[in-house]
Amino acid sequence: MFKFILVFLLINCNYGKYLYQTKFLSVPVDHFSFANNASFKLRYLINDTYWDSNGPIFFYTGNEGNITVFAENSGFIWEIADTFGALIVFAEHRYYGESMPFGNKSLINNSYLGYLSSSQALADYVYLIDYLQSNKNYADYSIRNPVVAFGGSYGGMLAAWIRMKYPAFVLGAIASSAPIYQFQGLTPCETYNDILTSVYNVSSNNNCPYIIKKSWPALRQVLSSPNGTEWLISTWKLCRPIQSKESIDTLIIDWLTNVYSNLAMANYPYPANFLAPLPAYPVKEFCRKLKLENINNITLLLTDLGNALQVYSNFTGKSECLNINSSTSDIGEDVWDYQACTEMVMPMCSGKFGMFEEERWNFTKYSADCEKRFGVPPIRPDLAILEYGGKDIKSASNIVFSNGLMDPWSGGGVLQDVSPNVRAILIPDGAHHLDLRSYNELDPKSVISARKFHQQAIRHWLKTYKTENLELNSVNIQNNYA
Amino acid sequence: MFKFILVFLLINCNYGKYLYQTKFLSVPVDHFSFANNASFKLRYLINDTYWDSNGPIFFYTGNEGNITVFAENSGFIWEIADTFGALIVFAEHRYYGESMPFGNKSLINNSYLGYLSSSQALADYVYLIDYLQSNKNYADYSIRNPVVAFGGSYGGMLAAWIRMKYPAFVLGAIASSAPIYQFQGLTPCETYNDILTSVYNVSSNNNCPYIIKKSWPALRQVLSSPNGTEWLISTWKLCRPIQSKESIDTLIIDWLTNVYSNLAMANYPYPANFLAPLPAYPVKEFCRKLKLENINNITLLLTDLGNALQVYSNFTGKSECLNINSSTSDIGEDVWDYQACTEMVMPMCSGKFGMFEEERWNFTKYSADCEKRFGVPPIRPDLAILEYGGKDIKSASNIVFSNGLMDPWSGGGVLQDVSPNVRAILIPDGAHHLDLRSYNELDPKSVISARKFHQQAIRHWLKTYKTENLELNSVNIQNNYA
Repeated sequence: MFKFILVFLLINCNYGKYLYQTKFLSVPVDHFSFANNASFKLRYLINDTYWDSNGPIFFYTGNEGNITVFAENSGFIWEIADTFGALIVFAEHRYYGESMPFGNKSLINNSYLGYLSSSQALADYVYLIDYLQSNKNYADYSIRNPVVAFGGSYGGMLAAWIRMKYPAFVLGAIASSAPIYQFQGLTPCETYNDILTSVYNVSSNNNCPYIIKKSWPALRQVLSSPNGTEWLISTWKLCRPIQSKESIDTLIIDWLTNVYSNLAMANYPYPANFLAPLPAYPVKEFCRKLKLENINNITLLLTDLGNALQVYSNFTGKSECLNINSSTSDIGEDVWDYQACTEMVMPMCSGKFGMFEEERWNFTKYSADCEKRFGVPPIRPDLAILEYGGKDIKSASNIVFSNGLMDPWSGGGVLQDVSPNVRAILIPDGAHHLDLRSYNELDPKSVISARKFHQQAIRHWLKTYKTENLELNSVNIQNNYA
Repeated sequence: MFKFILVFLLINCNYGKYLYQTKFLSVPVDHFSFANNASFKLRYLINDTYWDSNGPIFFYTGNEGNITVFAENSGFIWEIADTFGALIVFAEHRYYGESMPFGNKSLINNSYLGYLSSSQALADYVYLIDYLQSNKNYADYSIRNPVVAFGGSYGGMLAAWIRMKYPAFVLGAIASSAPIYQFQGLTPCETYNDILTSVYNVSSNNNCPYIIKKSWPALRQVLSSPNGTEWLISTWKLCRPIQSKESIDTLIIDWLTNVYSNLAMANYPYPANFLAPLPAYPVKEFCRKLKLENINNITLLLTDLGNALQVYSNFTGKSECLNINSSTSDIGEDVWDYQACTEMVMPMCSGKFGMFEEERWNFTKYSADCEKRFGVPPIRPDLAILEYGGKDIKSASNIVFSNGLMDPWSGGGVLQDVSPNVRAILIPDGAHHLDLRSYNELDPKSVISARKFHQQAIRHWLKTYKTENLELNSVNIQNNYA
């Protein structure tokens, strides 16, 4: 279960390249009720090197992880800040990194964790934005610094939503790889895995998905045979001891499924770090190790797969074993799982024709697992739809949704223009929020175009903002109703 | 303190005229967090007599009182429902009437009262709307019944805000007498009382505000003299015993201030009930009893005032005394005061030139009073501005703000068109949300025009909604950024 972690650690080679000050702002634990009037310190990173004091604020709406990771992996924002004279701010999402509402107790149980929600996070960001806009003259908003929100993945969803919900505080949003349609009833549950299959297909010339499809029964057979697990651990060089809350079979299969996802999401045209260092186009590298002629020989098939997995976790050749226990320290997987159990319920399944084992979306089982793990089942699987409008976002404005079509999350993204001011940008050969990363000479043209588009959009918003505020008192309004 | 109660009881002569079913829907106590997963029964009134199953839902976003009162006093909605083939729904605001989140305990203290906020109320309404839209196909919103929100006063603020925050669920809003700008820094604190003064001025030909201005020192003098209070109680025929949490002086002066407000808000062109029955144009009637020639004679001046007050509370001649202790059973004044102490902080003061005693807005005192009364000071006086955008509502659409210029709340209302789709309608001779009341042959032309405008706007929204949904898949989107 919980095999789909929406965001992931993209430590790139520029670690430490970006300079910022680390600050904290005291924000309310609960923005919508008064039963709990506690506050806590929210972390944010700030850089004013390029800031023209009348310039915009580039505000990254942090997602489920340590905010420093996102600051280090969103080079695009840093690269364009100078041109726009922008203040750069990366705000950390509550319950991740160092932004803990109840200190050490924050993750203990539901009574503490319960204030973790996207709505509360958005309100934190608005609170911070209001604080950053030094001139708080609410009667004349024209003198406030305009804010452009940026975010990737869940952070991209937050960037889009903060513009929709708080347009007075956020002028526009660049929402990269933001699957805001990945909720119940909006996108077929098999779409994610269908796209994954397709990525593995186009990245190989050996029918890679077919080989992977064949590996599942082989794996099940080995894992259920005497000493089979032992053989697999040894052949795949898995680190010992294996620690698992579930059975080792389930752990291995879930881990493997996750690897396929992660390889596709980080299928960048250059070597990058994604949980572990990866080569350029890792899916292609992975598939190259598999041999179509071995599919009917269980031993050879799984040995090939073991070799291929070295691409994922031992690209540098320095790892002595594949650690399937490991979870990263920077991405709060458990915390995200809580969100996935409460409001971020994203149905997933695998169809007959994909490279995975066929598996239906089983909400009953999902609920039971959530209940067992966190003491709360997903009481309101439609909550995010009610809060953010599902597919009906035509009233929104000033949002660019960008999606790499090599990214399995693109299936839940906004892939068509919604209106002249809510645009969809497709990056055919892009993986997960590649456009937010820093420039690389191996970047495909499509991502370079996307980044240009983002800048044009921001320029357009800023220009309109200025014009509107100048004209505000002399505006001649046409009558639509008479 | 707390002398300004935003909404008021307008029991008109049609009581019992409108037929509805009373229903309850179980809704979450907290829509934004998961620490408290309780639910409670929200009351709503529903009438489907005129409903064409494809027709709109006319949804009254209930304000601070028993919802039956608003259903009985919003005749306009009932009168136009047939034309539009609309389902009529009046939803009750949590913590008022019968919609108590924690039953009898709901109002005990802050830990129960704490879930009272406009955000939670809006989320209740969206939850109910989603439930009422029988077809919950979120992927194709074109087949859902469009919703038009209506509301007066605080209910009008909620109607506007629900459209701003949840445009996927609410197509448009008629926000009558909705002072969404009555927050700190948006509107000068003396505006409300300045408008009141002006209403008393234009309603009289005897310089009524001047006489009232003169009455305050007279009143203070009498109240501080031996037996003066006793004389006043007897002369004004106040009911005994007088029960007051504050001193009797303060009670009398606060009550009187409130009377001036209420008379203006209910300054309708025909007899109506407002806390007590009132004649047509009650401000004029009130002022007629005052005599300019008596202003220098304390006894005569206050005796005149006592006579004038009979207009307010004894129009029918049936009351034996003026009950200044009474609070109505249907409007939850205490509950509203809690809202005024938490998020609905609306600064009020009186300037030198108005008919009131000069009084500054004293936030420190206000906070202390709130703390004493409810155990919570207004920690976040800007909360509503952050949540709803203050005066920056240019991203909104499909809202009509209507204001009667005889209504003191109009000063905090939207009096200028914001955009082609966010319109301001002025009703020069209208009092507080007169346009939502049923037709009366004494209605001024301006309110008849306003009601026509409302219907044109609704028709326009519904037409656009249909057109947009038909064209949705064939829309040709122009490029704003390239």
